[in-house]
Amino acid sequence: MDALLSALGMDKVAVGFSNLSMFPLFDMAHYIISVMALREQPGAIEISRRSPIACWFSAMIYCFGGAIVSSVLLGEPPVEVFSNNINILMASAAWYLLFYCPNDMFFNICAIHLFRVLLAGMKEVTRTWKVLSGVTLAYKQYKRLCIALITIGWAKGAGTGLMSNFEQLVRGVWKPETNELLKMSYATKVTLLGAVLFSLQTTGYLPIAQHNLMFMYTIFLVVTKVTMMMTGSTVSPFACVESVLCRVILGLKSGDAEEKNSKSATKDISNGTCPASNGNIKAEPEETCAPSASSPDTEESNDSNKSSNKKDD
Amino acid sequence: MDALLSALGMDKVAVGFSNLSMFPLFDMAHYIISVMALREQPGAIEISRRSPIACWFSAMIYCFGGAIVSSVLLGEPPVEVFSNNINILMASAAWYLLFYCPNDMFFNICAIHLFRVLLAGMKEVTRTWKVLSGVTLAYKQYKRLCIALITIGWAKGAGTGLMSNFEQLVRGVWKPETNELLKMSYATKVTLLGAVLFSLQTTGYLPIAQHNLMFMYTIFLVVTKVTMMMTGSTVSPFACVESVLCRVILGLKSGDAEEKNSKSATKDISNGTCPASNGNIKAEPEETCAPSASSPDTEESNDSNKSSNKKDD
Amino acid sequence: MDALLSALGMDKVAVGFSNLSMFPLFDMAHYIISVMALREQPGAIEISRRSPIACWFSAMIYCFGGAIVSSVLLGEPPVEVFSNNINILMASAAWYLLFYCPNDMFFNICAIHLFRVLLAGMKEVTRTWKVLSGVTLAYKQYKRLCIALITIGWAKGAGTGLMSNFEQLVRGVWKPETNELLKMSYATKVTLLGAVLFSLQTTGYLPIAQHNLMFMYTIFLVVTKVTMMMTGSTVSPFACVESVLCRVILGLKSGDAEEKNSKSATKDISNGTCPASNGNIKAEPEETCAPSASSPDTEESNDSNKSSNKKDD
Repeated sequence: MDALLSALGMDKVAVGFSNLSMFPLFDMAHYIISVMALREQPGAIEISRRSPIACWFSAMIYCFGGAIVSSVLLGEPPVEVFSNNINILMASAAWYLLFYCPNDMFFNICAIHLFRVLLAGMKEVTRTWKVLSGVTLAYKQYKRLCIALITIGWAKGAGTGLMSNFEQLVRGVWKPETNELLKMSYATKVTLLGAVLFSLQTTGYLPIAQHNLMFMYTIFLVVTKVTMMMTGSTVSPFACVESVLCRVILGLKSGDAEEKNSKSATKDISNGTCPASNGNIKAEPEETCAPSASSPDTEESNDSNKSSNKKDD
Repeated sequence: MDALLSALGMDKVAVGFSNLSMFPLFDMAHYIISVMALREQPGAIEISRRSPIACWFSAMIYCFGGAIVSSVLLGEPPVEVFSNNINILMASAAWYLLFYCPNDMFFNICAIHLFRVLLAGMKEVTRTWKVLSGVTLAYKQYKRLCIALITIGWAKGAGTGLMSNFEQLVRGVWKPETNELLKMSYATKVTLLGAVLFSLQTTGYLPIAQHNLMFMYTIFLVVTKVTMMMTGSTVSPFACVESVLCRVILGLKSGDAEEKNSKSATKDISNGTCPASNGNIKAEPEETCAPSASSPDTEESNDSNKSSNKKDD
Repeated sequence: MDALLSALGMDKVAVGFSNLSMFPLFDMAHYIISVMALREQPGAIEISRRSPIACWFSAMIYCFGGAIVSSVLLGEPPVEVFSNNINILMASAAWYLLFYCPNDMFFNICAIHLFRVLLAGMKEVTRTWKVLSGVTLAYKQYKRLCIALITIGWAKGAGTGLMSNFEQLVRGVWKPETNELLKMSYATKVTLLGAVLFSLQTTGYLPIAQHNLMFMYTIFLVVTKVTMMMTGSTVSPFACVESVLCRVILGLKSGDAEEKNSKSATKDISNGTCPASNGNIKAEPEETCAPSASSPDTEESNDSNKSSNKKDD
């Protein structure tokens, strides 16, 4: 893989890319997109009127959820998340402008479709950096313990989603019947994939240079995200892989989606040349098989998908 | 300020006051008032009959909630809260006497109005010590990071309120629709104010001697508390400040209270010579504008206020 | 006590027993029984189809709940629970076989009554080791602080039960009206008793050799468990002790059970020569008096008991 990129002359681009600083532009894009996701939650605007401090706290969880979850898992002080005053100030500014700007001016600007796509793309770039920083952090303490590395990388990259039940509780909302483990959003899934890849790379099981992996993973993140936003599609790119994995490893028949349209599901299998289903997968049960993901043409489940999509944008 | 107190001859009183030991009298008052607040929760007595251990655990959260929350935030072992055997014994004794004393003798004595006011006043004194100990503890680790200092000071002083959802869960009660961030009680607000003041003092932004600030903040706490208990008033002394802050900083029109009596609200503003609305407030969104607090004459919301008041006495 | 065992020639047996390794046989029995308990929860099989990863995570909490709770209480990284790759793999294998084996073959084998009794007996043996390891761990940090030792020992031995609300949340189930503190299962109670005994032994208040205490406590655990499973009984062996403790210390009249059959309760007391009611009990309010436990012949409450019994098997 390294050789291929080298041959394409992409090697230097990848190195340069991996030295990119997230601060301040990409971080700001992350804060804006995160707080916008909060603002679009039902009832969030009312909360911002009734209790600005609960709203601010929610916004901070949206912006720094990954850091909070991973610090809890690592037994480090969660308050240390606030040790970077400048980042808190930037996130607070995004919160203030998006919620309290007269005539919702700032929100309306950010909500312009093309601008939002740009910001969302930039936010996806920060995901790579976060996952990698989580894996690197865990590697220092736990060396070759892949599960610990994957957990911390995942927590750092998708922490907001993973603690969403408790974030909602801050706003007085409680939906115990769902959580990100029961019904993973695309963002959570792709972060888990990234955590696995970077963990394998860090521990040496994946023979690829770090900057190349960073480059390719980011490209994948951004392209997928932008495509999904431009086409309004809610089809997970993992649907095929998940469906096959569920059948091969877990012996499941992809649940109720099956009953609806058994033909398309059969088609999926015949197409399925999924590279992931090799080797020691038994020990890594990270892939889910949520029914809605297994068939690409269930239009009726778009609504719920769209909302969970927006949330972790 | 220091000079003024010095001129009044209060300097020595303040120094002497700041050397006061909380143990054992003031601590005991805190435990008694805390456990009484638990006993007055709906269903608490039934729990004490059905499951003494859940009741005891709840009582310990009421008594040591601040220490628990701050130790979690600082990444320290929560079990260390129990490292001070004598304090646990004192709190357990208060719990035992208040719940299981024959004929509720101990509770009836403590519930005598004047005695209760005295105990509540003493409990408020411990608040100063707790907030200050939180700020000092955080200062050792985080130096000039105001947000961390404020958070820990606040958590130490008002932890029971902040973790009330989980304390209720121990007793089998779950009220997700409300929490101390969504609808702050007076105790939580005044503790936040104290945490801000002590943080500014500790980091040197507030030019006043520590013992003087302790003295004045405690006087304020005790006088307000005693006044509120004697008059049965539920009007927050911060109502005016909050209302003006919400208008000036957040551009809010103080919500539904506004609709009820827009005249009184207008009056509030004309009175409002609030000293807090100066300078760099944008970065510290700690002040809330709960609707009920913004108009001093909403008599109909007394009921809910009273219950939340009692709770964090 | 040591002399008695020595006279009986059991001393060497006890020493040999205390050197028994839990890995891999006893650990595997623990994982199988734990995951079986999860599988028998209502809705668990559906979850395993809909979201294997939530199911896997639940299973890990069932298997390692004690380690998770005690590491949180000690301020250690919860992710360290995953530092023992081989144990995670074993637990994952148990999870995979019990949930996804074709025709439920593995589950049906394990569910054979005699085999299940054997596994449950072996699981009880691991409880002794876990409680002792918790107490020993806490002793290193907190020395003679009995409450900390008891808490950690209890958390390590009965952590799954104590965090059951949050384990259920992973599966989208939320039952705030009950928890293990409000209505302790037999397993939780007996673990608490063990934690108290080992804490007293470790701090030197209980004059007995550690291996002898381990031996006798394990015998008690296994015999009680096996008897309860063979006879299908749901009567707690602690019912008499609890009833008397509640009367003597807390002055309770054993609640609603009393109303049903006051005669049997009176009988209980006359039988009650309970050795536990001596000395400094006031400081250790660990014994509960759940109404259903106070009368041995309340047949109508069997249903709820049975379910909570199964859970912590």
